[in-house]
Amino acid sequence: MHLRHLPAALAIAISLLSLPVAADTAKSTPTAKELIAKSKADEWRTPDPANLLYMQLPQGRVVIELAPDFTPLHAQNIRTLVREHYFDGLAIIRVQDNFVTQWGDPNDDDSGDKSKLKPLGSAKAKLPPEYTRAIDAKLPWTALPDGDVYAPQVGFSEGFPTARDPASGREWLTHCYGMVGVARDIAPDSGNGNSLYAVIGQAPRGLDRNLAIAGRVIEGMQYLSGLTRGTGALGFYTQAAQRTPIVSVRLAADVPAAERENIQVLRTDSPTFAAIIDAKRNRRDAFYTVPAGKIDLCSIDIPSRTLDAKH
Amino acid sequence: MHLRHLPAALAIAISLLSLPVAADTAKSTPTAKELIAKSKADEWRTPDPANLLYMQLPQGRVVIELAPDFTPLHAQNIRTLVREHYFDGLAIIRVQDNFVTQWGDPNDDDSGDKSKLKPLGSAKAKLPPEYTRAIDAKLPWTALPDGDVYAPQVGFSEGFPTARDPASGREWLTHCYGMVGVARDIAPDSGNGNSLYAVIGQAPRGLDRNLAIAGRVIEGMQYLSGLTRGTGALGFYTQAAQRTPIVSVRLAADVPAAERENIQVLRTDSPTFAAIIDAKRNRRDAFYTVPAGKIDLCSIDIPSRTLDAKH
Repeated sequence: MHLRHLPAALAIAISLLSLPVAADTAKSTPTAKELIAKSKADEWRTPDPANLLYMQLPQGRVVIELAPDFTPLHAQNIRTLVREHYFDGLAIIRVQDNFVTQWGDPNDDDSGDKSKLKPLGSAKAKLPPEYTRAIDAKLPWTALPDGDVYAPQVGFSEGFPTARDPASGREWLTHCYGMVGVARDIAPDSGNGNSLYAVIGQAPRGLDRNLAIAGRVIEGMQYLSGLTRGTGALGFYTQAAQRTPIVSVRLAADVPAAERENIQVLRTDSPTFAAIIDAKRNRRDAFYTVPAGKIDLCSIDIPSRTLDAKH
Repeated sequence: MHLRHLPAALAIAISLLSLPVAADTAKSTPTAKELIAKSKADEWRTPDPANLLYMQLPQGRVVIELAPDFTPLHAQNIRTLVREHYFDGLAIIRVQDNFVTQWGDPNDDDSGDKSKLKPLGSAKAKLPPEYTRAIDAKLPWTALPDGDVYAPQVGFSEGFPTARDPASGREWLTHCYGMVGVARDIAPDSGNGNSLYAVIGQAPRGLDRNLAIAGRVIEGMQYLSGLTRGTGALGFYTQAAQRTPIVSVRLAADVPAAERENIQVLRTDSPTFAAIIDAKRNRRDAFYTVPAGKIDLCSIDIPSRTLDAKH
């Protein structure tokens, strides 16, 4: 029995898989690697360093792209928090299986000592919700025609998965794997970005339109998802030693250019991205004999690449 | 600022959440805990110990319920492997982020020493695929009316999430979070259950009908999902020390009754399960102001409970 490595995700990772080549190669769906190899330079975008967060954990670096065209006030407040080093020395305080990894001030939960809360500095304590935005014909939008259980329309905009409701004229970022949301208390304006969560399981789309989404993890997701789950209520850690410390969070724009990562993200309005989606939707090769024919919005990975690792 | 513990998953875990009670409690969606508290004894089933696997890892016990009504030959072969202690001393060999955790013989991958493969004993090396089964009106089926991106119909059967295609007359288990599939090589009959994987990310529904699903993790999923991701191709570990050893796998039926866990699973054809789904679909309370109105098959947790912990 040879390599029992399957199944393989049709993500970038599959680019590393060398399947035995069947005689009918011509009929096989191209792999993401093959499609990416043929992509053009202008199909890739370099995220604005003013929108990139480097969150340094002991295990490695998590890179988050903010989404200021969807949540501008949150992006600005998070930049303020980051520039004043608010997150440095804080921690990952909660990992709830099949749901979210959350980070922020360990004293900011029920059992925390409120007198020890880290001050927010110049950042605002409350922000308007920014859960949705008005659909604007001038904004980029690439529809995914496969349908969706939760929303009338889904697709991609500016590199993020989104949903639209033409009836209400609203559009919103969706809680797919790796999306970064803004934790809050009961009041809709009580979120400010000082406590964030990343989706680490099946997309909790029921959160859509109920919470602000600040952005998406574009690199290092494995450092947030591969953590020991918390055993307290809602996955909170019950002992300080269980928390993963946050070494620092920096805005890429504030890091010397030579120390930045040269990350590129495949444009979600590019022909290659469309081809990758179609290949995954209709996957057929020596291994996969029954193509799904459809694909769910949150099952689509958005490829990224680091051209020149600096760390 | 008080408890910034939100968002909360409407899983069993939320039963531990004590939200500030709003004045309009009567209008709030009931929590899963509240609904479960009112459930009747006959809404719970005790899985047949002949279908329950106890996989002991250093971190804790993973309990898997086999699905012999869907994949009978695989269930029988896995029972044989387990009874001959095939898995004891093997390991978790692969953790690919947002995809699967896979376990089996470390020598059973590309870089393994094939001369050191553990013999399968009395178990079969090949099995018929069992990817789908014929729809049978006599089989239990509880439809989920919310629609699905991948299949004409979805719902639950015998405690498992399933999809149906009336046109082909076929029904199949779906690759939702926690489902346990049978790894194989290229040949459809090359799977035998000696290497299994559990879904640890967004449901890879494109695998449906291309692989056999042996069952579902009903307890201890966090021990499979919270592992450090492998850095090799497809998430395979590159060094032996990175692998999590499997202490043992036993069939509950082979364990003395006093040492078995008294696990019950909420019946997927019960009124309480339907009420929990509806509460999650239309969640509205002090925190959630925009109910989704719909729910995806793989976003529905199937509650389980341990009445009397024995270990």
